[in-house]
Amino acid sequence: MVGGAGGQVRAAVVGTGLIGGSVLLRLREAGLDVAGWDPDPAIRRYAAERGVPAPDALEEAVAGRDIVFLCGPLPTLAATLTRVAGATDDRCVLTDVGSIKADVATAAFAQGIGHRFVPGHPMAGADRAGLTAATPDLLDGAAWVLCPGPTGMAAFRRIAALLIDVFHARVVPMSAPEHDTAAALASHVPHLLAGALAGAVQRTPLRDAVLALAAGSFTDGTRVAGGPPTRTANMLLGNRARVLAELDAVRSFLDELADALGVGDGAALTALLDEARTARSALGDRSYTTHRREFPAAVDHAGELAYLRELGAAGGHLSGCRVEADAVSYTAHLPADPTVG
Amino acid sequence: MVGGAGGQVRAAVVGTGLIGGSVLLRLREAGLDVAGWDPDPAIRRYAAERGVPAPDALEEAVAGRDIVFLCGPLPTLAATLTRVAGATDDRCVLTDVGSIKADVATAAFAQGIGHRFVPGHPMAGADRAGLTAATPDLLDGAAWVLCPGPTGMAAFRRIAALLIDVFHARVVPMSAPEHDTAAALASHVPHLLAGALAGAVQRTPLRDAVLALAAGSFTDGTRVAGGPPTRTANMLLGNRARVLAELDAVRSFLDELADALGVGDGAALTALLDEARTARSALGDRSYTTHRREFPAAVDHAGELAYLRELGAAGGHLSGCRVEADAVSYTAHLPADPTVG
Repeated sequence: MVGGAGGQVRAAVVGTGLIGGSVLLRLREAGLDVAGWDPDPAIRRYAAERGVPAPDALEEAVAGRDIVFLCGPLPTLAATLTRVAGATDDRCVLTDVGSIKADVATAAFAQGIGHRFVPGHPMAGADRAGLTAATPDLLDGAAWVLCPGPTGMAAFRRIAALLIDVFHARVVPMSAPEHDTAAALASHVPHLLAGALAGAVQRTPLRDAVLALAAGSFTDGTRVAGGPPTRTANMLLGNRARVLAELDAVRSFLDELADALGVGDGAALTALLDEARTARSALGDRSYTTHRREFPAAVDHAGELAYLRELGAAGGHLSGCRVEADAVSYTAHLPADPTVG
Repeated sequence: MVGGAGGQVRAAVVGTGLIGGSVLLRLREAGLDVAGWDPDPAIRRYAAERGVPAPDALEEAVAGRDIVFLCGPLPTLAATLTRVAGATDDRCVLTDVGSIKADVATAAFAQGIGHRFVPGHPMAGADRAGLTAATPDLLDGAAWVLCPGPTGMAAFRRIAALLIDVFHARVVPMSAPEHDTAAALASHVPHLLAGALAGAVQRTPLRDAVLALAAGSFTDGTRVAGGPPTRTANMLLGNRARVLAELDAVRSFLDELADALGVGDGAALTALLDEARTARSALGDRSYTTHRREFPAAVDHAGELAYLRELGAAGGHLSGCRVEADAVSYTAHLPADPTVG
């Protein structure tokens, strides 16, 4: 567990918007010694009024902490990481909650803090924003990606154990590049498709008739096109190469659908739609098999790392991480999905 | 109103699945004399057990009726129309509920029944299927497209008045080709995009990780990819040329998004996403202006037809249609949308 000598764990949250504020409130509720910091003085005052220590200087908020969550906007993340690393000592572990992981993982490695920074990404809705919308249970039971690196296994174990204990998280261990590829399909490309559909409707002379006839397929398929354009653009730009690569895969499937439709080949069209349905059906009701796995605490990090990354790439997650004197044991769950192709 | 000499209106429904069954139950609840027919003897027995006359011969079910709703599957529609037209007399009006309108409108015109057949399309969810799922209130208050033709204005008025009275329908009058173009964007192309996204995920080695990370954008954007492939394929094939044309418009917007992303032009990307958001935002909370419009009952059908088609193409609908001795008056609603570009 986080913290030394059986004392109270000391945590800090930098950037107390919706996600950071919810992390902060939950950590406090769980009995941790917490501090928060936000660049906005009004937010710091609001936090202080809710009884959360929120000093004016970031350095003061993070000094002497066992764990720091970096929760500011994506474009500020690399600079904040440098600042927080410089203001904390070497036994303090760091993690973030950004939606893209490879760049920040590389930045941490280049700064020589790969052994104590573990990139993270809790999967939580972001319909609302700001500390005023934050709640202690926003992330309860969430899928929470962590990206352990070759030198950061001890930090991974400490953070995973805390997320499972405090947030009841389903911890999904993945390599940072695999996370970003999966996120491209799971979130970023869908934003492009929604934008293209809504954008084409905006340009047609029949726009208002289309909106009057909008069926569930249109309403659902364009929902995220209603979100803030700047936030969506930042997300897409931050994962540009992978988004474009996965978009090509989607366009290629779309071409096959259009070709079958164009020549009136009902059998081919139905077969493609059936292939698509297989993935969609697997989303609805997944069942899982559970297993336990132990690794020596001090050696064989390569085997442990490979195991964890394979688990996440296969759609699995951890619900337990117990660090004993000389061993770490994981409780893990893998999809037991009869529709896997 | 439908029916002659103040007597009880006599209606029939041919094809009593989810939509047809729901039409039938509502018409009966409203006090009409109803009969149903379905090609499946088990369905006819089920209807009879629920107290709805359901003779074995289609001809017997429709003979002597004032109005007949054709509610069978799209591929059977043209043949059923011929059969029903031959079994009913010239003062009986006909309508259908299929999701594509231009082909059946042309077929009716070619058969010389354009003066008494009015193509229709109620916008209702189809997550369920079958008479057992039918309910009298499925279509209550629905947007219900009707496609009046130049020779069918009297039939249009009778059907529109009945839909408004019995179903509280928002009647959307459109030309059949404009309906099919709007439906391509409002429903058919979204099915292709959902299929392409789910299909590409089915093919990636990271499929299960993508599903584990699936955010709302993916879940919403692929929802209709979980529907029956054959039904979706029939819908797409039935509107092939228009679906492909509107898909090109969507692909073109998608190309612009990808180009802006590819060169890292955040301003252009944000501007395109903002354009898309305008259409999506207009979907959420539309307000309408109301007006009334009168036309002579017997002449000037061209002006009345042009008015109705413009109303629907502009996203408007009718909530009233009153036929007096020498005039017809409509109560109509047009979007009063400050975001219209």
